[in-house]
Amino acid sequence: MNTLPSPHLPPAAALSRIRIVLSRTTHPGNIGAAARAMKTMGLTRLVLVSPRYFPDAQADAMSAGATDVLAAAQVCATLEEALAGTVFATAMTARRRELATEPLWVREAMAELASLVASMEVVRAPGNAGGEVAIVFGNETSGLSNEELALCPRWAMIPCNPEWTSLNLAAAVQIACYELRLAIVGAGDTPIVAEAGARATLDEVDGLIGHIERAATASGFLDPASPKRLMPRLRRLFGRATLEKKEVDILRGLLTSFDQPKKRN
Amino acid sequence: MNTLPSPHLPPAAALSRIRIVLSRTTHPGNIGAAARAMKTMGLTRLVLVSPRYFPDAQADAMSAGATDVLAAAQVCATLEEALAGTVFATAMTARRRELATEPLWVREAMAELASLVASMEVVRAPGNAGGEVAIVFGNETSGLSNEELALCPRWAMIPCNPEWTSLNLAAAVQIACYELRLAIVGAGDTPIVAEAGARATLDEVDGLIGHIERAATASGFLDPASPKRLMPRLRRLFGRATLEKKEVDILRGLLTSFDQPKKRN
Repeated sequence: MNTLPSPHLPPAAALSRIRIVLSRTTHPGNIGAAARAMKTMGLTRLVLVSPRYFPDAQADAMSAGATDVLAAAQVCATLEEALAGTVFATAMTARRRELATEPLWVREAMAELASLVASMEVVRAPGNAGGEVAIVFGNETSGLSNEELALCPRWAMIPCNPEWTSLNLAAAVQIACYELRLAIVGAGDTPIVAEAGARATLDEVDGLIGHIERAATASGFLDPASPKRLMPRLRRLFGRATLEKKEVDILRGLLTSFDQPKKRN
Repeated sequence: MNTLPSPHLPPAAALSRIRIVLSRTTHPGNIGAAARAMKTMGLTRLVLVSPRYFPDAQADAMSAGATDVLAAAQVCATLEEALAGTVFATAMTARRRELATEPLWVREAMAELASLVASMEVVRAPGNAGGEVAIVFGNETSGLSNEELALCPRWAMIPCNPEWTSLNLAAAVQIACYELRLAIVGAGDTPIVAEAGARATLDEVDGLIGHIERAATASGFLDPASPKRLMPRLRRLFGRATLEKKEVDILRGLLTSFDQPKKRN
C-alpha cells in the first residue's frame, strides 16, 4: 500500500456511509422530495423498504434533478434487509411510545451518528465494509411499527409544536440531513462575498467624521458650545456600518458639494 | 391595569411577532407546504408578496390541514408593504452577491431574531405595535431581487452541498422555522416516555449480577481462580442498559430456570 489509511474519515466519505431508509412510503412525491433534501445536504444513499409506488414519475418530478439519488436507490422488502451491514441505526419517531428507550432530540442524535461515522476505519473494501449507519423514517400516516423500532438501537424526535405535529416526511428528512451536515461538515466558510469593496481604515472613517463635524458646525446644525450627543451617535453609526473606502469617498464628496455647490447652467 | 407588562415576551407571543414573507412565489404548492412547515414549528403569520396563484387548491392540499395559516395569510403587492411595521427583516439568500453585507448562517440569524423578539416590550395595542420582525424568502427560481434584498438589514444562508444547492422553498422555510423554534422555545422537555417501567435500583442490578456470577460459576463457564474480564464486562453492559425492575425480575427468573428446569410433561 502506498498510503496509510487515515484514522478518521474525511467528511465526504463520512456522508457516504450514511443510509437514509424510508419504510413503506405511500406517496412517491415524498420519495422524490426526500432525495432532493438529501442531495442538498450532500447525502446520496437512499434505501426504500417496500415503497407503494417506485419508480414513479412523481418521484422524479419532486426530486427536481436529484434523479441520480433515485436511480441509485436500493429497494428492499424488509427493514432487516435495508439495515444489513449497518453497525447502528437511528429511528425517527414523532410519537411518544410505551416501553420506549429514551429518545434523543434530532440535533443530539445526528451528532451521535456523526461521531460514530467519523471514528470508523477507512476500509477500501467494496461496499463500505468499514461500517455504515442508517437513519430510518416510517410511513407518512402510521410512522414506524413497533417491530421496525425494535431494530433500531436509537430513537430520535424532531422538536415541534405539540399542538400540531404534522411534519411532512421529506421535511423531516431535510431537517435530519441538515443537522447531519452541520455535525459532519460544519457550516463551511462564512459566506463572505469576495467582491465586496476594500474596507475603510479607522483613519479614513475618522477623517469622514471630522469632515461631518466641520460641515455641521459651519452650517449651524452643531453648536460646539453645546454639542449634545450628535458626534458620538454618528461615530457609533459609522462604526457599525463598517464602511468601504469608496463609500467614505462618496460621503466626503457629498459634504464638499454642500459647501461648494456647483453652479447650475 | 391589573397586571404589569412582563419585560420579556413569552415564547408563544414571541413566535406571533414573526412574519414569514414569501415573495413572488410561482408554485402554489410551495405556499401550502410552507404554511405546513410554519405550523409544525408554531409560527402562524404568513405574508405573500404578489404570489402567482393564491388562493389555490394546490396550496390547500399541500398545507395538509394548515389551512388556518393560509386563510389568515396577508397578500401584498410589494415587499415594502409586507414589511410595514417591522423593526427588522432577515432575507434568506442562496447565492453569494456582489457588494453584499456579510450574511450569517441560518442558525446564528435565527438566534439573532429570537433575541430581538424576546427583548421586545409587551404592548397590548392591536396589531402587535410593540414590534415585529420578518424572514423573507424569494422566488423559487430567481430568489430575491437586489431591490428586495436592500430592504432587509440582515441576510442569511442555509449551509448546503456547494455542488448542488437546489433547496426547495418550503424546505428552506422548514429549516428556518425549526431553528427559530429551537432558539425561542427550545427543544422542550426531553421526550421521555412517562409509561416506562420503574428503574431498577443499583442494589437490584447488583443482585442480578451476583446471581449471574453464581450461575456462571456453577455451570463452569466462569472459573473463579481465573475470572478474566467477564464480570466487569457484564457490569458495564447492565450499567449502560439502565434496567427496569421488571427486567431484572425476568432475567433472574430465567437464571433460576436454568438451575431448576421445569419438567416437561
